Amino acid sequence: MPEFLTLLPPDEARALLLSHLSTPIMDSETIDVTSSLGRVLAEDIIALHPLPEFQRTAVDGYAVRASDMFGASDSMPAYLTLVGEVPMGDVPSFELGAGQSALIHTGGMLPRGADAVVMLEYTQSAHENEIEVFRGVAEGENVIGVGEDVAEGQIVLAQGSLIRPAEIGGMMALGILKVNVVRKILVGLISTGDEVVHPSQSPRLGQVRDVNSFTLAALIEKSGGIAKAYGIVPDTFDVLTATAVNALSECDMVLITAGSSASIRDMTADVIRSLGEPGVLVHGINTRPGKPTILGVCKGQAVIGLPGNPVSALVNGYLFVVPVIETLLGMLPKPKAILLARLTVNLPSQAGREDWWPVRLLRPEPIPAGADSTTFPEGKVEYQADPIFGKSNLIFTLASAAGLLRIPPDATGLSAGEMVEVMLI
Amino acid sequence: MPEFLTLLPPDEARALLLSHLSTPIMDSETIDVTSSLGRVLAEDIIALHPLPEFQRTAVDGYAVRASDMFGASDSMPAYLTLVGEVPMGDVPSFELGAGQSALIHTGGMLPRGADAVVMLEYTQSAHENEIEVFRGVAEGENVIGVGEDVAEGQIVLAQGSLIRPAEIGGMMALGILKVNVVRKILVGLISTGDEVVHPSQSPRLGQVRDVNSFTLAALIEKSGGIAKAYGIVPDTFDVLTATAVNALSECDMVLITAGSSASIRDMTADVIRSLGEPGVLVHGINTRPGKPTILGVCKGQAVIGLPGNPVSALVNGYLFVVPVIETLLGMLPKPKAILLARLTVNLPSQAGREDWWPVRLLRPEPIPAGADSTTFPEGKVEYQADPIFGKSNLIFTLASAAGLLRIPPDATGLSAGEMVEVMLI
Repeated sequence: MPEFLTLLPPDEARALLLSHLSTPIMDSETIDVTSSLGRVLAEDIIALHPLPEFQRTAVDGYAVRASDMFGASDSMPAYLTLVGEVPMGDVPSFELGAGQSALIHTGGMLPRGADAVVMLEYTQSAHENEIEVFRGVAEGENVIGVGEDVAEGQIVLAQGSLIRPAEIGGMMALGILKVNVVRKILVGLISTGDEVVHPSQSPRLGQVRDVNSFTLAALIEKSGGIAKAYGIVPDTFDVLTATAVNALSECDMVLITAGSSASIRDMTADVIRSLGEPGVLVHGINTRPGKPTILGVCKGQAVIGLPGNPVSALVNGYLFVVPVIETLLGMLPKPKAILLARLTVNLPSQAGREDWWPVRLLRPEPIPAGADSTTFPEGKVEYQADPIFGKSNLIFTLASAAGLLRIPPDATGLSAGEMVEVMLI
Repeated sequence: MPEFLTLLPPDEARALLLSHLSTPIMDSETIDVTSSLGRVLAEDIIALHPLPEFQRTAVDGYAVRASDMFGASDSMPAYLTLVGEVPMGDVPSFELGAGQSALIHTGGMLPRGADAVVMLEYTQSAHENEIEVFRGVAEGENVIGVGEDVAEGQIVLAQGSLIRPAEIGGMMALGILKVNVVRKILVGLISTGDEVVHPSQSPRLGQVRDVNSFTLAALIEKSGGIAKAYGIVPDTFDVLTATAVNALSECDMVLITAGSSASIRDMTADVIRSLGEPGVLVHGINTRPGKPTILGVCKGQAVIGLPGNPVSALVNGYLFVVPVIETLLGMLPKPKAILLARLTVNLPSQAGREDWWPVRLLRPEPIPAGADSTTFPEGKVEYQADPIFGKSNLIFTLASAAGLLRIPPDATGLSAGEMVEVMLI
């Protein structure tokens, strides 16, 4: 079979692809922080002022001078005059002298003269304007100093960070309402296959609806890209090449989902070769599904040929397209959502090949106490990974799957009862 | 301390809250399938026709009659006349007679008369119109029958399913271009705290910017909701109550982020009690951060009081607000993204309390072959979980965290080197 000259392991194939890409796309756009969820920072975020900006208390209690409380205990409480209550959100109007204290609520500003806060539970009201304190405090105890959280000029969020709820909160804490984010990656999608029709059409006998353009568009959207569809292209070299040239000029990367037959896949490789150096980097990957995947880079832009089979196309989208988008976004590495689960059945695999099986994740009834207690640490969530079998790898195999189970290349299969890795999709 | 009458474990607290909610909100809206990523199905999706709609081949090869190939082997090949090639996307114009074969590509329609497909690699061209076949095939081998993937009338996607790329593909395969999804859950957000100002303002000494409204709004958006902000409300019972009544009438649920002092938290509980039965269900949860969290249901609607501390508010948003949104959406249970990682340091915890620590996830250098090989199965991704310590639980603690490490209630701490659960955030 001419198309499988070399079968690289998926990790090597991915590394080779990423190493040939042009530097990250650093075009940025300025947007409201409140609309930035899921975007990637195009700049370091620097604190223009320290946090906190004033000495504040971390607890509810009494602001005191630590030296007044030396040796205080249950049997020998310290007695302090109560001079007032610190108002929330304002500068205390009074100063604390020797032997004095002031009621203060979490987040309140320390009055001048105070250097520590004693927690409410270690105190008791003695007289109207006096408190008893049953424990000593060290200077600075329960106090957050100016700049203790964030110093002025500190980089608080790094360029390449994914913006999650916490990052939005961090910017708001500093009064940053606008942010530069990397513009979304534009991905051109070309479908081939004389048997493929748009989903709005009723397929005649022998035809099937286009699925890959839509699963891949959704995956791209989810990963920080925008899909641009170039339609279903006839299975001829000239038309496919012209479409790909156009797509490459308009987009940051291009995906070609080949028809399902080997001849169309070979033609896709020829098209990628014609688009520019280095052209096809990987033709054939030692993985299932996805062996016929073609990874190419043409003049710095990724061009990926995905198999026509909907499951192969989408699984290989997760494995190869998402990492390219993340690289182009200049994203800092982020951990994949991988869950350990217990396999329900034996699964065969060919040594040297990495397999990705669609699996359901089941929560079995709790295991009776005492039974099998050594196999999974107490208190941890245990799922069962139940492989989904299907003759034709229809897209509904993936629609009923919670994730993809990985069989590593060095395994010749996995046994029922084994703990396995599942990538959530 | 009056606010902590009972400290429920977080799992029990969550179950109690969810058990008091009105049935899922089943208002739906009809949208384009191409815009449905991340939404929840408000209906079962039923196949109006079978898939495939015609007998097709799963491989590249030759369509044959299985009975012609009985006993074929390397030493005794079967010889078949080649009568044509099945066109992709069309009905074959010919019928297969005894002793005949036709070239067919993956996805192609079987010609009448054929009942199996022999893979290309078990054949060889003998003469111009003849092939040799070196292996027998069973009837139906490599053929996908009509409706074998999906039968007409079958429920292919269940109500309550989260729409991911695969679900979009599944609907497209059936020609379904519009879909009913559950409308997004509207969540009212009320901030309190006399010290809290809008991020656009320069805080005076003693003031801090509102963070919680924005982290929670982003979390809500991410989880299938829409946040509606009711602003920063003065710390008085009447104003807070009036705002909450208004928010409850306009929204599906309401969050009140209390100021940081205990007195304001107590007032929040009183407000929730005044809003309707059953009122406050849980006041104080045996977890850190988040002990002061208040869970309430008023006339079927959830009202949650979150601590003013930004880390507590967001962590408890993940633990309690997201499950409410998912319940109201009628979502089928979905596995949480939990990763196992190796703890870098000892972490103390109080027995009976569940702790959630912000952690970085580090990828250490690969462990040298042979060393420590029994502790983690070969081929699996190992991360180190490195807890982030900070005095005041500023929001940047979470912004630098990849996830939250759970210390189960029954543990009195975790040891360096132990495998621990990390919930990705």
